[in-house]
Amino acid sequence: MSLIVVGSVAYDGVETPHGKIDRMLGGAATYISLAAAYFTPVKLVGIVGDDFADEDVELLASRHIDLAGLERVPGKTFFWSGVYSADMNDRTTLRTDLNVFADFNPKLPETYRGEPYLLLGNIQPALQRSVQSQMPQLKLAGGDTMNYWIHDFREELLETIAAWDFLLINDSEARQLSGQHNLRRAAARIQGMGPRTLVVKRGEYGAVLFHGDGHFMAPGYLLEDVFDPTGAGDCFAGGFIGYLAGRGVQPSGGNLDPAELRRAVIYGSVMGSFCCEKFGVDRFRSLTRAEIDARFREFQTCTAFV
Amino acid sequence: MSLIVVGSVAYDGVETPHGKIDRMLGGAATYISLAAAYFTPVKLVGIVGDDFADEDVELLASRHIDLAGLERVPGKTFFWSGVYSADMNDRTTLRTDLNVFADFNPKLPETYRGEPYLLLGNIQPALQRSVQSQMPQLKLAGGDTMNYWIHDFREELLETIAAWDFLLINDSEARQLSGQHNLRRAAARIQGMGPRTLVVKRGEYGAVLFHGDGHFMAPGYLLEDVFDPTGAGDCFAGGFIGYLAGRGVQPSGGNLDPAELRRAVIYGSVMGSFCCEKFGVDRFRSLTRAEIDARFREFQTCTAFV
Repeated sequence: MSLIVVGSVAYDGVETPHGKIDRMLGGAATYISLAAAYFTPVKLVGIVGDDFADEDVELLASRHIDLAGLERVPGKTFFWSGVYSADMNDRTTLRTDLNVFADFNPKLPETYRGEPYLLLGNIQPALQRSVQSQMPQLKLAGGDTMNYWIHDFREELLETIAAWDFLLINDSEARQLSGQHNLRRAAARIQGMGPRTLVVKRGEYGAVLFHGDGHFMAPGYLLEDVFDPTGAGDCFAGGFIGYLAGRGVQPSGGNLDPAELRRAVIYGSVMGSFCCEKFGVDRFRSLTRAEIDARFREFQTCTAFV
Repeated sequence: MSLIVVGSVAYDGVETPHGKIDRMLGGAATYISLAAAYFTPVKLVGIVGDDFADEDVELLASRHIDLAGLERVPGKTFFWSGVYSADMNDRTTLRTDLNVFADFNPKLPETYRGEPYLLLGNIQPALQRSVQSQMPQLKLAGGDTMNYWIHDFREELLETIAAWDFLLINDSEARQLSGQHNLRRAAARIQGMGPRTLVVKRGEYGAVLFHGDGHFMAPGYLLEDVFDPTGAGDCFAGGFIGYLAGRGVQPSGGNLDPAELRRAVIYGSVMGSFCCEKFGVDRFRSLTRAEIDARFREFQTCTAFV
């Protein structure tokens, strides 16, 4: 079943200890869609300028990502650039030019509105809510946010996530949103805000899934080389929701099947790990579903005990 | 089968966001022994001053920890004090008074020398080697070290760990010892130095076991309250080696049974997690083997997926 992905489509400039790229395809919706498309049909909602390159359109289209919702307007595409620390655990933003993204006001094409799955990338909470309201037949909806919205748009954000089935955020954001340092307490408080399913991403240390009264801890994959972590969190989100949508998972009595959720978190970790293996979206130019499933089994091998 | 534990026995002063204790029983050998004693008979090797309290002797003795190797000399017991940061991920040492520990030169009682299991706590590498040389019937030996020895006593340390079956260190020490930032590369290099089994501790994020060509990732237990992390790493070591000794695990063709090693890492994590639930060694005054096994099963519940 089709998944609607909403968020930024951008160009990025990135410098890591492994090299420097001045301009390459990026943006949350791009990474989410590329990752999710291995599992389910994807329909993208975003905005780009008239500088958006044909080859980038072609890459997305080659993955059968529906681009009817990718608005193209005069002006320049969102541009972000940053430089990573030596251990790649921190990054400094050098430039953020919102460009045409500043006026992003997503309107879903008619062909998108009846779809059952929705992943809202990190954008203004009111816009996230507006998209959700355009989809009357939703079965599963959730998304991402960031420190800026948590701090400066708290009430709007709370209203938005109250209607979500799941929320994916990183650990510092979970602490900021809940006002609790302890992760278990933070999760309980956030679950009380609406999303019954919460995934807390911990970078190289993996992710923790909170569902109902239980939780599940997924390790981060131990890569031999991390070339570029840009987009890893979005690819996690794409693998997570893509897997659930592909399997047709939906809440039953308000709850999602815990076994499917656990597998979804592992597929998220798998997609995040592949993302780091090359610059930008490059790994997805060659990645196969067979490689994805092999890495899923690797996660089983390196976490199982009896 | 009995386990010999060598290391510091101390008094600690600790301040965490949950409170402040001016003086309480501590030291690596204390924590290791208390944790290991749930799994196997323990014989402790250490040194204390004439200020060492009867009630602390009684606590250790009540756990059937053999104290024939706990030397008592005129002077004061090793004292350490420190204060933890608000999130308890960092700590600042306020005082380190080595006292009688400065002249620690462990000589094993005759009744200790025939034992098969040895855990060398973090002391001068030459002393660690000297202890090992007093045990001709060893089946499994390994231990811990720290940044100071890695930096200032590198050659001695390399000579010492070359004879170890396993090494337990934290991630920053693994990076320092190997000169590699990437954990997988760091582990491969350290395994080349001697210890075929390496456990890299990552604090609240758990631990990674490297054995042969494989690895195993154990999450950190999500506690609702961390009262005092002092000794958690030592309790991890105690649970790890205690479990292996209790099961009579020994190398076969140079390798340890991977399934037993994985269980040992989980028991290590279990013991480390209990340690944090109260100040100092307090949790071990009431902890039962049934609670330990219940938490082991909790680790299974929160990591399993198919």
